[in-house]
Amino acid sequence: MDFRSDNIATVANEIMAAIAKANQGPASGYGEDGISEGLEFKYSQLFEQDVKVFPVLTGTIANALALSVLCPPYGAIYAEENSHIMQDECGAPELFTGGAKIIPIRGKAGKIEANQLQKCIADSASGFVHAVQPSVLSITQVSEFGAVYSADEISELCEIAHGANLSVHMDGARFANAVVALESGNKPESAADLTWRSGVDILSFGATKNGALGAEAIILFRPELSQEMAFRHKRAGQLASKMRFISAQLDAYIEQGLWLKMARHSNNMCSILAKNLRTCSDVKLVNYGGANELFIRLPGRWVFALRREGFKFYDWPETVSAVSDKPCTIRLVTRHDTTEKEVTTLVDAVKQLAI
Amino acid sequence: MDFRSDNIATVANEIMAAIAKANQGPASGYGEDGISEGLEFKYSQLFEQDVKVFPVLTGTIANALALSVLCPPYGAIYAEENSHIMQDECGAPELFTGGAKIIPIRGKAGKIEANQLQKCIADSASGFVHAVQPSVLSITQVSEFGAVYSADEISELCEIAHGANLSVHMDGARFANAVVALESGNKPESAADLTWRSGVDILSFGATKNGALGAEAIILFRPELSQEMAFRHKRAGQLASKMRFISAQLDAYIEQGLWLKMARHSNNMCSILAKNLRTCSDVKLVNYGGANELFIRLPGRWVFALRREGFKFYDWPETVSAVSDKPCTIRLVTRHDTTEKEVTTLVDAVKQLAI
Amino acid sequence: MDFRSDNIATVANEIMAAIAKANQGPASGYGEDGISEGLEFKYSQLFEQDVKVFPVLTGTIANALALSVLCPPYGAIYAEENSHIMQDECGAPELFTGGAKIIPIRGKAGKIEANQLQKCIADSASGFVHAVQPSVLSITQVSEFGAVYSADEISELCEIAHGANLSVHMDGARFANAVVALESGNKPESAADLTWRSGVDILSFGATKNGALGAEAIILFRPELSQEMAFRHKRAGQLASKMRFISAQLDAYIEQGLWLKMARHSNNMCSILAKNLRTCSDVKLVNYGGANELFIRLPGRWVFALRREGFKFYDWPETVSAVSDKPCTIRLVTRHDTTEKEVTTLVDAVKQLAI
Amino acid sequence: MDFRSDNIATVANEIMAAIAKANQGPASGYGEDGISEGLEFKYSQLFEQDVKVFPVLTGTIANALALSVLCPPYGAIYAEENSHIMQDECGAPELFTGGAKIIPIRGKAGKIEANQLQKCIADSASGFVHAVQPSVLSITQVSEFGAVYSADEISELCEIAHGANLSVHMDGARFANAVVALESGNKPESAADLTWRSGVDILSFGATKNGALGAEAIILFRPELSQEMAFRHKRAGQLASKMRFISAQLDAYIEQGLWLKMARHSNNMCSILAKNLRTCSDVKLVNYGGANELFIRLPGRWVFALRREGFKFYDWPETVSAVSDKPCTIRLVTRHDTTEKEVTTLVDAVKQLAI
Repeated sequence: MDFRSDNIATVANEIMAAIAKANQGPASGYGEDGISEGLEFKYSQLFEQDVKVFPVLTGTIANALALSVLCPPYGAIYAEENSHIMQDECGAPELFTGGAKIIPIRGKAGKIEANQLQKCIADSASGFVHAVQPSVLSITQVSEFGAVYSADEISELCEIAHGANLSVHMDGARFANAVVALESGNKPESAADLTWRSGVDILSFGATKNGALGAEAIILFRPELSQEMAFRHKRAGQLASKMRFISAQLDAYIEQGLWLKMARHSNNMCSILAKNLRTCSDVKLVNYGGANELFIRLPGRWVFALRREGFKFYDWPETVSAVSDKPCTIRLVTRHDTTEKEVTTLVDAVKQLAI
Repeated sequence: MDFRSDNIATVANEIMAAIAKANQGPASGYGEDGISEGLEFKYSQLFEQDVKVFPVLTGTIANALALSVLCPPYGAIYAEENSHIMQDECGAPELFTGGAKIIPIRGKAGKIEANQLQKCIADSASGFVHAVQPSVLSITQVSEFGAVYSADEISELCEIAHGANLSVHMDGARFANAVVALESGNKPESAADLTWRSGVDILSFGATKNGALGAEAIILFRPELSQEMAFRHKRAGQLASKMRFISAQLDAYIEQGLWLKMARHSNNMCSILAKNLRTCSDVKLVNYGGANELFIRLPGRWVFALRREGFKFYDWPETVSAVSDKPCTIRLVTRHDTTEKEVTTLVDAVKQLAI
Repeated sequence: MDFRSDNIATVANEIMAAIAKANQGPASGYGEDGISEGLEFKYSQLFEQDVKVFPVLTGTIANALALSVLCPPYGAIYAEENSHIMQDECGAPELFTGGAKIIPIRGKAGKIEANQLQKCIADSASGFVHAVQPSVLSITQVSEFGAVYSADEISELCEIAHGANLSVHMDGARFANAVVALESGNKPESAADLTWRSGVDILSFGATKNGALGAEAIILFRPELSQEMAFRHKRAGQLASKMRFISAQLDAYIEQGLWLKMARHSNNMCSILAKNLRTCSDVKLVNYGGANELFIRLPGRWVFALRREGFKFYDWPETVSAVSDKPCTIRLVTRHDTTEKEVTTLVDAVKQLAI
Repeated sequence: MDFRSDNIATVANEIMAAIAKANQGPASGYGEDGISEGLEFKYSQLFEQDVKVFPVLTGTIANALALSVLCPPYGAIYAEENSHIMQDECGAPELFTGGAKIIPIRGKAGKIEANQLQKCIADSASGFVHAVQPSVLSITQVSEFGAVYSADEISELCEIAHGANLSVHMDGARFANAVVALESGNKPESAADLTWRSGVDILSFGATKNGALGAEAIILFRPELSQEMAFRHKRAGQLASKMRFISAQLDAYIEQGLWLKMARHSNNMCSILAKNLRTCSDVKLVNYGGANELFIRLPGRWVFALRREGFKFYDWPETVSAVSDKPCTIRLVTRHDTTEKEVTTLVDAVKQLAI
């Protein structure tokens, strides 16, 4: 029963099948095969606009390359203080931009708020030769704490950013889960609504966490950036000779809405967790944004008990005490392949502790 | 009938099966799964020494990361003038080393000769503060022109390099083909003989060209470099969250000698080509080193004729004239999945032209 | 009457004379002249230990090069959030380290406190491959807000840093003013006490702000770093061909205590300001550490009045309102060539406003 | 009697006087003083076009920063194989461009020839994603072997370069000597003729070798590059706080033709050497382009004899044998402050050996 992350998930059958299908015989290398060449058309349709697509292996490199074409070496990138590019990429953005600086913004549930961004930009030293120059806003959809930006929120942030001559990058490692989370609201929003229509310039479109084997797509909504990106992508060691096997994943991922179907399942599993755990005494939902991450607060002693029973998950972020009832927070993540049984077993175990 | 490169090959069945097997359920991310953790043991056995293994997606990044832990930003790297790191990686070594300089050496059939290396080192400005500092020798096994270094040749080069305080990197994109090519000689040489026993510090161990889906291993023969490598590897965006699927390829690749079996097939196919084409009038074997690459010289008119019949291959390097009998050179590469029929069809076609 | 910064000061006569004296005839370039070669001995005596000295043009490059030999590209540097390396060097540390990250620490009057540093280190992800690795502590003496670290304070910070395997860099742009500020205390402390004896590994030893024409010295207390520094120094474009004219400044600067004599004058001028302004009603000393910087709070209206009378200084940091009595803060800096008349004229002007 | 380099020269009296004059009182820092602000006007007049001027300390950084705004990190820079940027800057261009590659061209007396450049560009892999992209041509005026490009030659090279979308940088460490060398020809050419009118985009305008204390100017003939340059210049640690003392040198350097007057003297001294040594038996003029560098070939034994008599100069490039009459080559450089006596003493000494 593993709720640590969606990156522990299996590869979806449809994607494995697509890989196998791509293996029917020799094919041109370095993205000159038919599957790779077809991605641009397919993703342009998905996003209702001409886009350029660069397949890569990981989210880290998707983010770093995206930032490298938007930010000069002497630039500043605004990001939420807990964001992946700030905390979890061992300096990849700094390497690929040639030394840009990431300026952390304290957000709310991992989301940057408009007034915070405005304040940061107002405080910045734009044009002042002694300071790094504000160049990019990077937002994370779904946020590090499971929150989802609406299209309106994205638009507001992008308007502020563009008004100050900043480009906008979206780290969409869990973009599918965000799109699905917003389906159920009053105002379902498309992939286009949540990106370029709201002002996003480049999207790191995640697939690995949602059923791919190892594939992310850098989606350029400003096609004029693609020439520079092509060289940076190669130079980063991401132009795989057998690109077709990465492209096949990205192709199958969006074929017939597979990506949304899988995210729908993940989100559903999480909503069952949320609905049930919410009712347990001594359990408090800390962050839940309708996607596939749930942060709950519960007695430290319970955390140990659950682990002893074989449940896996991460403390977030404090260290948990085994011998105290002092509450602590854990993160639970559901996957495209999380079973209802896993979910109900966990719910039952918590309820048992709550008696 | 495609003889362009071994990177157009399919994935071997054993490797596809290993990937499928790795997909039986959730597993820890970022290389903390059982398959990834087992690589070190398995590769240490293969190389008869404790090694550290870093799985990556491409040969470009394997080379660049290897060089980045051996060469300071103000260092110089000696490499054959046609080598991949010099010509075909769009500056990846420069990016990952922080701006080191590659000094080209004119080789013979792509191999660096001892006296040339000695001369370069003698001419270098070691210790002179105005000049980049000689730091690494990088050699390519199999060379860009299909030649194979013997263990003695490698030892001689490494001795010169180490004597001048240089580290040694081997770009082994076709290392399997080299090992197999040397089997048939008087003095079969092991993977260990051809690397650390001869003085190599880091090997880029290729698998993609020889039947993997997309996997190369950086093999550190100096384990003390592994801590630095771990951070550089992550920072380069190569620490895949679902690392198990890259590791599974590398695991299956050397299981029960699969890598050598596949290379043996490739090399055999090439040797059939070589044996038969050698006898055609007007065809001249330019470079053939016993591995899976063959460079032949033939009339330009024939090149066009062969292409018209559906054969694919690269000119190397001159442009071919369609209307002349002026000879030109083409490169033919065989693969683990090249069929005997493909080979004999090509041989027949050339023979037909030669009549 | 200009109190904006000590970098507006003139060059001291003794230093101009030393430059002229260095110009008596041809001399070897690139630091192989007698004056440059003598620096090591002279600074080793000053610091009571064998040191290596690298003359450079600016504080920016002194800091950036110092950090570049202490911090790997994937490293983290802890610094006070208002420090020069964090705010005012347009990303120079990021460029020269190859992309390290500076982690801001909120200090007190610009000084890092031991418990804050301890907390930051405890929160850091040392050894965690996803995060940049804690590598350097950088402290500023005198701090950005005019405060001075005692030797005890430095020792305490260095002990914490070294205990966590961090190196320590000191940005000593106003090091002379700090040494002098501590003279008058109960426990005068030498240049050695305030640096290597307390655990500092590299000092950016400032001279430009205190009477030089354009010269700073990187002082290595770990001589084994000097070989790497030599190449980085050259590569940064800092190995001046006519190095003797930079070295002559650094030589004269410490000859017969000139540096301390000049700093003593600056500090005295500032102490007169402090003593007199402290007594004005409506004026509040915000930060004054005994060196040559003074931060006072006074009505916004006065700020405009003073400027109209020709006084120059910087607001720090808020924008001042001309039409309000709302107090605001300004920074006053005295120089080696600030006259007593300048000081008393300013004091009188403020007193006039205070009536 | 020192003929090693013009960088051993003294500072011209006029320049020392200008520095002293700039020291009459406090002045705004970071180039906001009157002298610095006046440079743009003065240099625009000199070059008969609006230019942007960035003062720096050394030729190394002038070249590296110039290249950094013309060449992307994945770019290639064509330069003569013996050029400073290729051989003598310890990788500074690689650092500041973020890892560009310098492609050496074999020139004639250090000058690149049009057909060689054409061949290199034709051989380049422009648009090929696996290769660094041709971006800049960098030429050196006066060349490393003392040769001078005419305006026609520069135009021809620039036309080829621009035709292939390359920018053009000129390393003008000895630009003054080139201008003067061409005065005496049939077709005197102005600073403008030899730069932007011929197609040069950025000039590293040297002053240090020709009488300054430590000052070079980056001259941008494409003013739109100045915003990016301002940040790179600061970030490189070249925005000196007391910039006025560098600017004062650059101001005085071109005041009333001082720069040309000094170069005229240097060139004259060299021409006397050339005229006299040419007539000595066993002495052969290898390279002499009319500027201030002379390469002569003479018996190795003589080289030792001359050194024993106190003459200083560099072997170029071979090692000289003391015990043989085998001829070897030395470089002689004259300076703005070389005396006629120095020259005649050397001539006499050689003549003595030639008897």
